[in-house]
Amino acid sequence: MGIRHIALFRWTEDVTPEQVEQVEKILGGLPGAIPELKSYSFGADLGIGTGNHDFAVVADVEGESGFLAYQNHPDHQAALRVIRPMLADRAAVQFDI
Amino acid sequence: MGIRHIALFRWTEDVTPEQVEQVEKILGGLPGAIPELKSYSFGADLGIGTGNHDFAVVADVEGESGFLAYQNHPDHQAALRVIRPMLADRAAVQFDI
Repeated sequence: MGIRHIALFRWTEDVTPEQVEQVEKILGGLPGAIPELKSYSFGADLGIGTGNHDFAVVADVEGESGFLAYQNHPDHQAALRVIRPMLADRAAVQFDI
Repeated sequence: MGIRHIALFRWTEDVTPEQVEQVEKILGGLPGAIPELKSYSFGADLGIGTGNHDFAVVADVEGESGFLAYQNHPDHQAALRVIRPMLADRAAVQFDI
C-alpha cells in the first residue's frame, strides 16, 4: 500500500531566502535520484494561514520499505544535513494512501 | 495555480480510537460536499517515525479562493468543531503545487 510521508519545517529566525532556495534546489534533485519516490512535492508556505510552519515536503512511496529506502538514501541524508541546522521545529506524519 | 493544504494534528492524551474513527468518517464526507476539493487524503500516523504527530490531512484546491471556500464551507467548519477539542497541537502549511 502507498504511504504518504509529510514533514513540515519551521526555520530558525536567521535562515535566509538564499538558504531556502538551496533547500528547494537540493530537494528538486531527489525524485531523479531516488526511484522509490512515486510522487514528491515541496514548497514554502504561502502566508495565507496563521501560525503556520514555513515549509512542507510530501513524499509518496510504496510501503514501509519504500519509505525507509527514501529516508536512508545518501542524497536524502545529504539534504537532511543541510536542513537540520535550519530547523526551529519539525512536524511529521506517515499515513496510508 | 493549485494549492496543497496540509494540517498535522497531535491529539490530547484522552482522545480515544472511537473519536479518531469519528473524525475519519466526518472527513470522508467532505470531498462529496465541497466541490473545491480537487484531491483529499487523510489518515492516522503509521507509527514508523519518531516524534510524529498523530494524524494528517492533505487538501488540494485551486487557488486561494478554493482554499478559502474549503476552509469556510459549513461541513468543514462542522468537522473543525469536532476536531478542535481533541487537539494538543496542530501544524499547517499551504504551498503551491
